[in-house]
Amino acid sequence: MFQAQIFVTLKPTVNDPQGLTVMASLHRLGFNNADDVRVGKYLLVDVNEADRAEAEHSVTHMCEQLLANPVIEDFRFDLVEIPNATGTS
Amino acid sequence: MFQAQIFVTLKPTVNDPQGLTVMASLHRLGFNNADDVRVGKYLLVDVNEADRAEAEHSVTHMCEQLLANPVIEDFRFDLVEIPNATGTS
Repeated sequence: MFQAQIFVTLKPTVNDPQGLTVMASLHRLGFNNADDVRVGKYLLVDVNEADRAEAEHSVTHMCEQLLANPVIEDFRFDLVEIPNATGTS
Repeated sequence: MFQAQIFVTLKPTVNDPQGLTVMASLHRLGFNNADDVRVGKYLLVDVNEADRAEAEHSVTHMCEQLLANPVIEDFRFDLVEIPNATGTS
């Protein structure tokens, strides 16, 4: 069993109004050292697969079909092996 | 200059309706190997500080004051040194 740690970020060329808003708020709070803010998503998905390649294939498809918008977002992920609670793998 | 890669996640005991919705959607798309989904935030903040300890201190306060809700969320971050565009550090 694997846990996929998925990072979904806006492509560098895409405008990020949420990031700009966060940066403005940081400046208002006195954090004038904040130069640039980009906001993305961080998803943790437990994948019930014994084989790393199978899990990788599955998570790539999850990202392409649901978790990321390929027009404006990039994604990457790490797979971490976790012990299976049921004892089977 | 440093880039802070900040992960904000719901505390393990807090219910995650967004994660449950994503998991239901994954199952509907045929990804029956998705066992658990948690949704968090991933923020990239460029911090204009020459000193790593200063940057760390600053980012910790940003998280505590704005980026994470300490009642229901945990945060952690990595600091990556990046070249300063202006040539000063």
